[in-house]
Amino acid sequence: MKSPVRRVPRMLWRADGAAAGERAIPEEVAVALTYDGSTQAVMMATPADLEDFAVGFSLSEGIVADAPEIERLEIVEQEIGVELRMWLAASRGQALAQRRRYMAGPTGCGLCGIDSLAEAMRRVPPVDQATRFSAREIRGALAALAPLQLLNGETHSMHAAAFALPGKGVVALREDVGRHNALDKLCGALARDGIDGASGMVILTSRVSVEMVQKTAMIGAPLIVAVSAPTALAVRTAEAAGITLAAIARGDSFEVFTHPHRIAEEVAAHVV
Amino acid sequence: MKSPVRRVPRMLWRADGAAAGERAIPEEVAVALTYDGSTQAVMMATPADLEDFAVGFSLSEGIVADAPEIERLEIVEQEIGVELRMWLAASRGQALAQRRRYMAGPTGCGLCGIDSLAEAMRRVPPVDQATRFSAREIRGALAALAPLQLLNGETHSMHAAAFALPGKGVVALREDVGRHNALDKLCGALARDGIDGASGMVILTSRVSVEMVQKTAMIGAPLIVAVSAPTALAVRTAEAAGITLAAIARGDSFEVFTHPHRIAEEVAAHVV
Repeated sequence: MKSPVRRVPRMLWRADGAAAGERAIPEEVAVALTYDGSTQAVMMATPADLEDFAVGFSLSEGIVADAPEIERLEIVEQEIGVELRMWLAASRGQALAQRRRYMAGPTGCGLCGIDSLAEAMRRVPPVDQATRFSAREIRGALAALAPLQLLNGETHSMHAAAFALPGKGVVALREDVGRHNALDKLCGALARDGIDGASGMVILTSRVSVEMVQKTAMIGAPLIVAVSAPTALAVRTAEAAGITLAAIARGDSFEVFTHPHRIAEEVAAHVV
Repeated sequence: MKSPVRRVPRMLWRADGAAAGERAIPEEVAVALTYDGSTQAVMMATPADLEDFAVGFSLSEGIVADAPEIERLEIVEQEIGVELRMWLAASRGQALAQRRRYMAGPTGCGLCGIDSLAEAMRRVPPVDQATRFSAREIRGALAALAPLQLLNGETHSMHAAAFALPGKGVVALREDVGRHNALDKLCGALARDGIDGASGMVILTSRVSVEMVQKTAMIGAPLIVAVSAPTALAVRTAEAAGITLAAIARGDSFEVFTHPHRIAEEVAAHVV
């Protein structure tokens, strides 16, 4: 497998002239996700944690409901990219083949515009309403990220998606040049480690577009905390899914756009 | 059409407690691009400059070679998104239908992994080798961006793609929550305004992934200047396409990763 970080030569131009040197930058590879021999998507991704990516993409796209429905996963490196070859349990494989016949996913081959829009705006399952979080836990989880972002520490240009549990802090973190991929990798890591998504918060170093909310809903997490801003569609989608969306987290401050009842300065419940 | 910027209520949490208030955030809508009645892609995008987006996407994806091959464009607003309905000149429409039968685009419905990877890693046309740029012009174009980023000025969370001509500065700038969309909008704006992409530089406020280089190659621009870092695959692709890739542009400094011969402190040629 290619290394996720590459050192490359470059000319540094400053006000006083140019000088040769080196810089660590993220690798990026084309990754094809195939099911039962047929390609579902090609994503440009960081070549790290690709097992997690395969499982997480399958779950967040609703191709499988549980990781064991992927009966076999082979990672095949080609010269021009990587194939993540998956074979599904018979019932899931049939369901996917049927879905393909009806429509060809967001990038269509026959579907008309309005049906394609409906597919992209698919309803997501509502999350659990009981879990509460304290502002102190949110600040603590955010402060814990940087030392865990190993690839970003080298390149300063990778996104991270992390998962934190009340009372335990950050229990999983995955990195990728693409924020969607980082979240899919996190989703797969949680499923493979048997961590219940409903019990904690998803933390993102990125902005929050609607797809980040859709993926979080598939994980079942009731809280998103993001370093950058959400879109208005992400806010409406989080509102509808019952997800608390906190964003623009800087230093000790953050802003809550939906379902603010879940957050208090201190929460006693999970200490019991 | 929805406004590209929305003001929404939110709770601001600081170390000393929470307070209600408002925040301007970017709108995001599902946009379906259809050709002759069939969907090619659904993108999440900022609802602004959608004519440019339709034309630019068609050009950068190689669906048409020239804007006039799109014979008709209708923008149809639906409750769940926007349809960009395009009708192609007969020969182009037939070519697209044939390409669809062979394969179903990056999100496939039948293609095997290796063919999908080859499609994603398609060769791009090499750019013109003669044009030169001065470091002073690059710094000037970068400094000119902020006041032109009207949507980002309100939201602080939009990407911009701009085009600058030697001796003239920034002549076009487009914004979107997605960096790929911003560059597609720029591509369409240049085509619709009759500006030759081979004559200037593309400026990006974002990181540079391989797809940003592929799109720049389709524009024909010999120089990319980006505020953030490139991926290693973007560097290799720029190298192969003959594109000078400058990135990590901060204050007066920037770093050149490929074809550094195009840049000098001062360039006399275009003054003549």
